[in-house]
Amino acid sequence: MTDAETHKKKMQKIQAEHRARTREAVDPRRALVLVHTGDGKGKSSSAFGVIVRALGWGKRVGVVQFIKGKWKTGERQFFDKLKEGVDWHTMGDGFTWDTQDKDQDTRAAQAAFSRAESMMASGEYDLVVLDEINIAMRYDYLAIDAVIAGLESRADRTSVILTGRDARPELIDYADLVSEMVEIKHPYKSGIKAQRGIDF
Amino acid sequence: MTDAETHKKKMQKIQAEHRARTREAVDPRRALVLVHTGDGKGKSSSAFGVIVRALGWGKRVGVVQFIKGKWKTGERQFFDKLKEGVDWHTMGDGFTWDTQDKDQDTRAAQAAFSRAESMMASGEYDLVVLDEINIAMRYDYLAIDAVIAGLESRADRTSVILTGRDARPELIDYADLVSEMVEIKHPYKSGIKAQRGIDF
Repeated sequence: MTDAETHKKKMQKIQAEHRARTREAVDPRRALVLVHTGDGKGKSSSAFGVIVRALGWGKRVGVVQFIKGKWKTGERQFFDKLKEGVDWHTMGDGFTWDTQDKDQDTRAAQAAFSRAESMMASGEYDLVVLDEINIAMRYDYLAIDAVIAGLESRADRTSVILTGRDARPELIDYADLVSEMVEIKHPYKSGIKAQRGIDF
Repeated sequence: MTDAETHKKKMQKIQAEHRARTREAVDPRRALVLVHTGDGKGKSSSAFGVIVRALGWGKRVGVVQFIKGKWKTGERQFFDKLKEGVDWHTMGDGFTWDTQDKDQDTRAAQAAFSRAESMMASGEYDLVVLDEINIAMRYDYLAIDAVIAGLESRADRTSVILTGRDARPELIDYADLVSEMVEIKHPYKSGIKAQRGIDF
């Protein structure tokens, strides 16, 4: 066989496998719960990418940010200007190492989650993103049981993405999809500054 | 010490470390090259999330998609409607297992890369995304040496994100940042269909 023929045969096999998988696949009973965790880059940004996908199909999106309160970010500015399709809520107090007040952070996280719970249960959203919520659980501002109860009470049409490193094992068990972002190489490690429009 | 005091001390330490790192960090000589690889979800979507960040800061973005030619995606529809800030090019022939023609795919990939090279060298873009280009290298439609030469000729202001599984080791060596998306759990494996607004 020539290289072209070998290639064709291989691609036909991949196509057949792909079609068989697609043919047998079904829609889920409820919209999916996705978790982006790990120490690498891409957890929040891929959630923002999925928002773009959802908006492209005319879907309605809610976002609750649990950590980056005061920080001016590109994503925030972009979706603010867009105005359409996205309801965006930010927990007001910023990084937990800047507030240094556990009680205050706990109250803020719980207020943010209470907002998230209403969004998830309302039936008005196709997608709700809980950005950096894993950090709030890691510092015990939020109990994992409360978060899972909130997910379980979501409307059937509502997908939820939860981001942040150190996802709780119970959340990983509950989720339909879990992707771990692993840091292979990071320029911060060689003393490079976080870049506007890339990192925030 | 009370729990609140322990928390405060710990957060002060994290804040001090964070500030020291930020103080010493410098801007890179040239804008960064980022690679999103691995078998997990989030490689392309996090590139789209970074586009949103860049646009939020008023930056100019170019995208060349190497694989998903004919497929109607949410991201494509969203950025088409937006019209502002993003120049989007799609290699026209769709999945390589659908075309089954190595010569045709090679020509299409090289034409797409030639477009990408001009974008990177032009000095007109803050960010160029080469979506699924790793697949084109994996199937030898594009030579890794040509891709690295193209990256090396980029304008200093132009960051580049290259996505797709099976990134070549030479590309990983060359890049400033590499994030590997690892599949921990995927609903396709339990026979669930790709979801509009989530997966495409």
